[in-house]
Order: sequence, then C-alpha cells, then structure tokens
Amino acid sequence: MPKPSLRIDLPRLLPILDWGKRYDRIDLSGDMTAAVIVTIMLIPQSLAYALLAGLPAEVGLYASILPLVAYAIFGTSRALAVGPVAVISLMSASALAPLGIDSVSEFIAAAGVLALLSGVMLVAMGALRLGVVANLLSHPVIAGFITASGILIAVSQLKHILGIPAQGHNLPEILSSLGQGITHLNPWTLATGLAALGFLVWVRRHMADVLHRRLGLSKGAAGTAARVGPVFAVIGTILLSWGANLPGLGVAVVGEVPTGLPPLGLPTIDWALIPALIGPAALITIIGYVESVSVAQTLAAKRRQKIDPNQELKALGAANIASAMSGGYSVTGGFARSVVNFDAGARTPAAGAFTAIGLTFAALYLTPLLYFLPKATLAATIIIAVLSLVDLKILKTAWTYSKADFAAVLSTIMLTLLVGVETGVAAGVMVSLLLFVWKTSRPHVAEVGQVPGTQHFRNIHRHQVLTDPRVVTLRIDESLYFANARRMEDMILARVHDGRDDIEHVVLMCSAVNEIDLSALESLEEINQRLSDMGVKLHLSEVKGPVMDRLKRSHLLDALTGQVFLSQNEAFEALIQQPS
Amino acid sequence: MPKPSLRIDLPRLLPILDWGKRYDRIDLSGDMTAAVIVTIMLIPQSLAYALLAGLPAEVGLYASILPLVAYAIFGTSRALAVGPVAVISLMSASALAPLGIDSVSEFIAAAGVLALLSGVMLVAMGALRLGVVANLLSHPVIAGFITASGILIAVSQLKHILGIPAQGHNLPEILSSLGQGITHLNPWTLATGLAALGFLVWVRRHMADVLHRRLGLSKGAAGTAARVGPVFAVIGTILLSWGANLPGLGVAVVGEVPTGLPPLGLPTIDWALIPALIGPAALITIIGYVESVSVAQTLAAKRRQKIDPNQELKALGAANIASAMSGGYSVTGGFARSVVNFDAGARTPAAGAFTAIGLTFAALYLTPLLYFLPKATLAATIIIAVLSLVDLKILKTAWTYSKADFAAVLSTIMLTLLVGVETGVAAGVMVSLLLFVWKTSRPHVAEVGQVPGTQHFRNIHRHQVLTDPRVVTLRIDESLYFANARRMEDMILARVHDGRDDIEHVVLMCSAVNEIDLSALESLEEINQRLSDMGVKLHLSEVKGPVMDRLKRSHLLDALTGQVFLSQNEAFEALIQQPS
Repeated sequence: MPKPSLRIDLPRLLPILDWGKRYDRIDLSGDMTAAVIVTIMLIPQSLAYALLAGLPAEVGLYASILPLVAYAIFGTSRALAVGPVAVISLMSASALAPLGIDSVSEFIAAAGVLALLSGVMLVAMGALRLGVVANLLSHPVIAGFITASGILIAVSQLKHILGIPAQGHNLPEILSSLGQGITHLNPWTLATGLAALGFLVWVRRHMADVLHRRLGLSKGAAGTAARVGPVFAVIGTILLSWGANLPGLGVAVVGEVPTGLPPLGLPTIDWALIPALIGPAALITIIGYVESVSVAQTLAAKRRQKIDPNQELKALGAANIASAMSGGYSVTGGFARSVVNFDAGARTPAAGAFTAIGLTFAALYLTPLLYFLPKATLAATIIIAVLSLVDLKILKTAWTYSKADFAAVLSTIMLTLLVGVETGVAAGVMVSLLLFVWKTSRPHVAEVGQVPGTQHFRNIHRHQVLTDPRVVTLRIDESLYFANARRMEDMILARVHDGRDDIEHVVLMCSAVNEIDLSALESLEEINQRLSDMGVKLHLSEVKGPVMDRLKRSHLLDALTGQVFLSQNEAFEALIQQPS
Repeated sequence: MPKPSLRIDLPRLLPILDWGKRYDRIDLSGDMTAAVIVTIMLIPQSLAYALLAGLPAEVGLYASILPLVAYAIFGTSRALAVGPVAVISLMSASALAPLGIDSVSEFIAAAGVLALLSGVMLVAMGALRLGVVANLLSHPVIAGFITASGILIAVSQLKHILGIPAQGHNLPEILSSLGQGITHLNPWTLATGLAALGFLVWVRRHMADVLHRRLGLSKGAAGTAARVGPVFAVIGTILLSWGANLPGLGVAVVGEVPTGLPPLGLPTIDWALIPALIGPAALITIIGYVESVSVAQTLAAKRRQKIDPNQELKALGAANIASAMSGGYSVTGGFARSVVNFDAGARTPAAGAFTAIGLTFAALYLTPLLYFLPKATLAATIIIAVLSLVDLKILKTAWTYSKADFAAVLSTIMLTLLVGVETGVAAGVMVSLLLFVWKTSRPHVAEVGQVPGTQHFRNIHRHQVLTDPRVVTLRIDESLYFANARRMEDMILARVHDGRDDIEHVVLMCSAVNEIDLSALESLEEINQRLSDMGVKLHLSEVKGPVMDRLKRSHLLDALTGQVFLSQNEAFEALIQQPS
C-alpha cells in the first residue's frame, strides 16, 4: 500500500503557478498593452474614488498598487482588474463617518483597518467555502443597490462641481446641505466642472466614433482608447488651472500630494473602533465580493474560461490585506476597468502586476503635477462613471414580472437613498428573505384530476379532467415546513369539510413537496387523525426519494390510515375501483 | 337596488353576543363549577408567578381579575383561562431587569407598561390579520424554548427553597449566584421548601388515585380535584409558619399584602423606557400568542369547536391592556389552568368572568391570611408546575428525523439557558429561517427516466427507467429563487458538459418548481444562451399554471431554443422521435 502523503494542491492555492509556467511572448504583449491603457485610466479614477471615500487623493494610488500584485498571485480570473471602486468607496465613507475622527492620519488608519477586517473576512469565507452567502443577495437587490448608490454618489459630487461645502450620507442630508451652501457657489469652479462634464460626455458619446472614422483606428481599439478620455480632461484642466491661476479664484484643487510610497506594515489599529467597523466591513465584504465575482464570471464566460469562487474570495482578501498594509483602503474588482483590461487584450493576471508598476511610477513621479488638478474635474469623472451604473429599468422589469421582486428592489433603492447604503442593502436582504418565507407560507394547493386518456393529473380549474366524488386529490405546490404547516392543515380540513359525506379518500400528491420538516410532520399526523375521526382515509402519492427516506424514520407511516402510492395514477386507479 | 349599508359584524367582534344569547342553566352550572376550581388553583399560582416576575405577590392577583373579564368578552375559545403564566413571567423579569429600577412602585409601573405595549401590539396584529407571523416559530423552536425556560425557572426558584439570595437571567449567572450564597443557607427555609416539594410531588403522583380509589370520586373528578392540591400546601405551610413562628427563624414569607383593589387607569408611563421595552414586548407578544392559541386550538378540537386566530389576538390584546390598567402585568392563556377549566366543565368564557369574581374576593379578604405564607412554598409550586414543561425528548425526536430541526432545537435550548430567554427565542427563529434558506439554496436535482410501460418519470439512480443518450431530463426539486439560482445554473451546465457531444436536448421538468423569481429567470435565460452556444436545445415540461402565467410576461419563452411541454411524457416521446 502506498504511504499516504500530505499533498497540497499548490497550483490551486496559487493560480500564478499554473498560468505562470506557460507564460509566453504573446501573453506578454497582450498584458503590456492592457496595462498601459488601464494605468492611464486608473490614475484619475483612483484619485477621484479616494476623495469620494473622504480620503486624501494619494491613498487611491496606493490602493491601486500592491492589491493588484496580490490579486495577480492569487486570483483565478484572467481579466479582472482590482482597485478602488465607486460603490465600495461610498460604503467606506459611510462606515467611517460615524466614528467622528478629525485627524487625517487617524482617518487613513481607520480606512486601512476597515480594509484589513474585510480582507480577513474574505480569506476566512474562502477557507470555509462560504462563497454561497453571496447568494443571499438577489439580482433585484443588487441592481437596486447599485442604482441607488450611483445616484447617491453623483449627487454627493455636485458639491465639487458647484464649489460649495456639503456633506451627508443620504439624499435628504446631501440635498439640504447643498441647499444651505448654495449662496457660496463659486462660478469659476462651476465653469471648470461643467467644462469637464461636457468634455467627458462628448468623449463617452462621440470619441470612439471620431477615432474610428477620422483617424482610422479599428472599432475595438477606438472604443478602448476612448475609455482613457478622462485623462485628457485631467491634463486639460491642470493646464487651465495653472495658466489661469484658478486656485487664486477660489477653485479647489488637489494641492500638495506627497511623493513616494507609504511604508509597508499594518495600519495603526485602534481596537476601540473594531466593534463599530465589524458590521460595515461585513457588508463591504459581501457587496465587494458579489460585484467582483459577477464581473469575473461574465468575462470568463466570454473566453470559455472558469473562475473558482472560493479562490476568488481568498484573492480579494489578499488584495484588501495588501491594501491595508500599504497605506490603501478597501478594494475590489471593478466593472469598467476590467472590461477595458479585457478589451485591451489582457491575457493573464500579469496585466494587473504591470498596471501596478505603472501606478508606482505615477505615485513616485507624477504627484507634483497633480497640484493644480481641480477637484471639480475628478468629481466630473466620478459622475460620468457612476451614471452608467444607474438603471431604473429594473423597477419596470420587476414590476411586470413579480410584485415581490419589485418590493425588494423598491425598498432597497428607497432605503439606500433616504437612509444610507448600509440600511439599504441590509433591508434588501431582509425583505427578500421575508418575502420568500411569506410566499412559501401560503402554499398553492391545487385539486387535480386525470387528463383523459393519460396518466397525467392537472388542476381541475384549469383543465378538463376526470374526477371521482369519493376521492379528493390535492397537489401541494410547496415544501412543507414550519411557516406553512398549520395553514396546510387548515386548507386540507376545510376542503374535506366542504365536501360533506361523499368523500372517502384524500390523496396528497407530493410531487412538488421537496421537504417535510418536523413541524409539518406533526401537522400531517394531526390531519391523519382528524380525517380518521371523520371516516376519511389519507393517502400519499409521488413522495420523492429523500422525503420518503425521512418519513420512514417517523411514526407517520405506521399511523397512516391509507397507503403511499408511487404514482398519482396508481393511487387514482386503485381508489376509484374500491367499493364504497 | 337596495341601499348599501355599513354593516359591522358585531357577533364576530364581540363573541360574547353570540354565546351570550344562548346562555342557559346547563352552561351556568358548568361554568360555576369550573370557576370555583380554577379560582382555588389560581390563588397560589398567581402569587407565585408574580414573585417569579420580580413583582410583589398581589400583582399576580390583580393580573387574574380584569384580564379574565376582557377575554370573556372578546375571546373565541370556550375553555381558555388567561392570567399570569410561568414563561411570560420569566420573560417579563428578564425584560425589566436591565432597566435598573430600584423603586418598587416604578418597577410595577414598568411591568404595566410592558403589558400595555404587548396588548397594543396584539390588537394591532389582530386588526391587520397578522396572526400568521406566529408561524415563524417552528414546533421544535417552541418546544426547545419552553423546555429551556422551564429549566431556567426551576433553577431560579432554588434560591427560595434554599433561603439564600441569588439572581441572574441565565443558567451560569443563577448557578454562580447560588454558589456564592450557599453559606447563607437557612435550614428552616430548606425544611419548609422540601416539605412543600415532597407534598406536591405526592399530590401530582398519587392524590388523584387516592381520591378515586379510597374516596370513590370518579376518575375525572379526582384528576381535576388533584389539580388544586397546591392550595393545601399553601394552607398547611401558612399554619406551620404561624404556629412555629418561622419568620422569627429567618424563613422568608410573603408578608404584608395590601388589601383591596388597585385604582383603575393607565400605569405611569416613563417614555424614556419605551425604546428598551419594544423588543421584549414584541417577543412576549409572539410567545404569549403562540402558547395561548395552541392551547385554545387543542381544546377546541376536542369538542369540535373552532377558534378565530385573528380574534384571539384582539382578545389577548384586550386582556393585556386590561391588566395594565388594573395594576397587573403581562398575561396570556395558560396550559394547565385551561385544561383544568375544560376538565371541570367550563362551557363558555363566562367561566373566566366567574373566576375573576373569585379572585376579587381573594384580593379583598384573603390577603391578610397570606402574611405567614413562606416564599419557599410558592417556589415549590412553581418548580412542580414548570417541570412538566421540560421535555428533552424533542432533542431525540428532532435528531432522528432531521438534523436541521435538531440544530434549531439545540441552539434554542442552549442559548436560552446560557444567554437568556430573549436571545434564545430570537436565535431559534433566525436559525430556523437561515436553515430553511440554506436547504432550499441547495436544490435537489434528479436526472429522471421513464418507468417502463407508464407515463411516469423517476430518478435514474433509484428506479429502473428508460433513457435516451440524446435527451437529458433533469427534475428540479425546489422553487427557483435568488438563493439557488446560480447553483442550479452551475449544476445544469456541469451535467451537459459531462455528457460530451451526445446530448441534443435538455428538458427541465418543473413539477416541483413552485416559483421562479426574477433572479432565477435571469439564470434560466443564461442557461438557455449557454446551451444554445453548445448546440443543445432547452425545453421545459410540467410547468405549473401560476409559474407559466408569470413566464409569459417575460422574454424567456421568446428566446427559448426548445418547447414547453404540458407533460414530461409528451416531451420525452416527442424528443426521442426527432431525427438527430
């Protein structure tokens, strides 16, 4: 017998070992091209998202370096680009605001602790294979949350465009704050902001077209190149701001950004903050994971590749821990940048590592050039980016298809806008769960009969079917469990009561009963007893294997006054032939 | 055309109008007999439960007067006896303890406010027909909670038997408190307590037998009479305590109990306490309602009567509001007293009103006699009463039948004992819900084939069935919703991937699919698309009416590469005859 050996599946733990050994020149050229384009796109974005999170701009750059390297080592997606993203930045701001931290360095440390917590949670979930908890977020809840967050973010950026102070973490707070500050409106800031916005809208609508038709770029290349449009807005407004001395006119600029890289190491941990950060960190963890894994799956499917959800948890965890240890904040896989990375030809996670090199260069040498960059330009970048997240069509789709889904979307959107991101997403999950329980607590019970000439049984109210007054067959369209056990009891007994004295047999057709829990078992025993008192026999048909296995371990089958039939047809044929 | 008139269904709102007009001499004699026996039983019980709730003994008497009258007017059960009960008294103590109230009168007022809140919630739930929320408590959770509460209550009463001070709201707290106080043990108290306990055990085990065999009472009458046994323990120990001057030996007695009745009116409401009481009041409301309605239903079924759950909510609400307005505390329908009431021949809710008269008499004239009553006697009464609630067999039953139910019982019992009643019941509900979601998030998918010679399709691994390599039929044994949509997607695509190139048709047999929510719809669209990319057609069979109605409002049916078949048999016959 061979000696058992402790084998660790290294290529599974470190996907880099898998793709790394087959890495070739074609991969290198694709990854390099993608990295250059993503770097140019990420510079303004990472600065802007850091400001959105309430952090100094350079923190966004730091969060776009080591996390990318960590993901390149541990990640399973060939195209995912991680870094600061809009929704997570907003959630981070919303988590840190109630702590009431005044010192900038302490605020940065707290953001790092938040990323660290979330990183540890992600790794733990990966180790425990708990990726499945992400399933608690239904599509409508995610869609509603992303839409509402997009609106909140866009509105929160208006203060930079208008040049007035404003704050708040929900729509009423931000709007009333903007209203109070409107008298301080700075026309130069507004002009800069509107110019940047106008340019970015033009870039988004027409630049690809211009590059394709006038400059002869291929359609794909033109589309990808147009994605770096914001960098021209950055360069243009820096030059304008410097030339016209906009800061002297009261236009807020990014100002002094420290050159160089932050020291490596854990952020200063203020243990007193941990209890207040656990909840928000958990929400950031789940939202970040869901957003990232959806993007990764979409892109993997396009190239018939696969991703491993549990490994993705560990990779995102590693990216967040790396961010926390290098002066950054919470990160995840972003939709826009991943699509650009994919379209620009990224073939392996090495593209992310090359992007990290580009951003290191930016952090080391470009930060002095950012002094004159108007904050209004960054706000315009954010507004354009997040408006593409806003999709109110989900309300109409949900309304048409199912009122329960509509209720979940609507409550998620309304609570996110009116109360805040954490309440919104928590309410969405709770509403979805409670509606599911509510729906299953009102089981659909159909009385069925035989479709003539077949062995098939359908609803007597929807189909022309054969029945027998002595035999009532009820098909229960739901698993039987505590939330609906008593209701089912009432429904069945009421039906028999209405049928007066003709009824001799009740057959429960269990083709749709996927489970019978202990509460429902007790209800079935009760039904059997009550029917027996009325002189009516209770039969079961089409009980599924796993359900039957469990019933055999109970007393129900001993007490049952009738039989258990394999098929409904057998039950019907046998019972109608019995003499009264 | 007749003028529409505003009709209020008065007999439904006030059931007393219904049974009251048919009230006759037979009803009167049955109700009077029952009232006498229940009154004798309730005097020691109501004193004891008030002490358990941390209140002066007389509060228990007050809570047994007006609430009974209110229930007699509004209630639909002919046998339910309301008043203070053990579990609700424990929950009330646990709700009020954290408020840190030192003044006795303020503590009584807070208990009244708790009853008032719970009464208002009950009436509101009745008006909104929300009795269904009680379904969230599964049988195992209720059984586990009642068992753990019984143990907690019994252990908490040991301090009165041992004559030592002790406190706490969970097992570790109470036991360590008892351990610290053991040096103060009072032997006279212990002797009194053990004597009372011994007598009560004898009463419970043998008294009915003695009354039946030796004194010739009928078996039923003897059983009922034995229920009033505790009153003999009360009388005996009062005489002993007075004769031997037990208070002089350090035995704690009930002491001065005010004579007369409290003034009617709302309790003094300290609005600052309301937020802290809302949560506990909600739990007391739900537990009290579930306990009461189960007793009422059990007894109604024995006489083929019906109760109206929504009217019961209003009646219990009225009883709690009446209790709050007359110096009492939270009440509900109790199991033991209702059974005694029923067995002693109560025929209408008037029995409750007569009991109220008996207790008024006790409050007016008997309280001076209670001065010498040892608290140890009352503790013994409680211990004997609650030990009958303890049923650890539920653990074994649940373990045998289903591990999920077992997990729910075990976590309810453990958390109730180790943390407290509120955490225990809340955890039980959450665990049940999460386990249900977890179970349904892992749908059972069976590959099925035709049972030879029938039109019936069963699992290929459990039955000898006919299949065709070109047609894969998967029966999905679960409603499709957000928690399992992605998993189902993975399972179906994995099956087709494994089947290599033979597969031309995938049929999803939806006989057990009771719902398809928006998330699952998107997954089905995705499956259809991916299968189409592989050259495989997707078909549906046995889609239920309500599900089909909804699918018709979506785009899935337009995009579907295959067909929707009424029955699985039609699908199989049609597809195996198609040329490859």
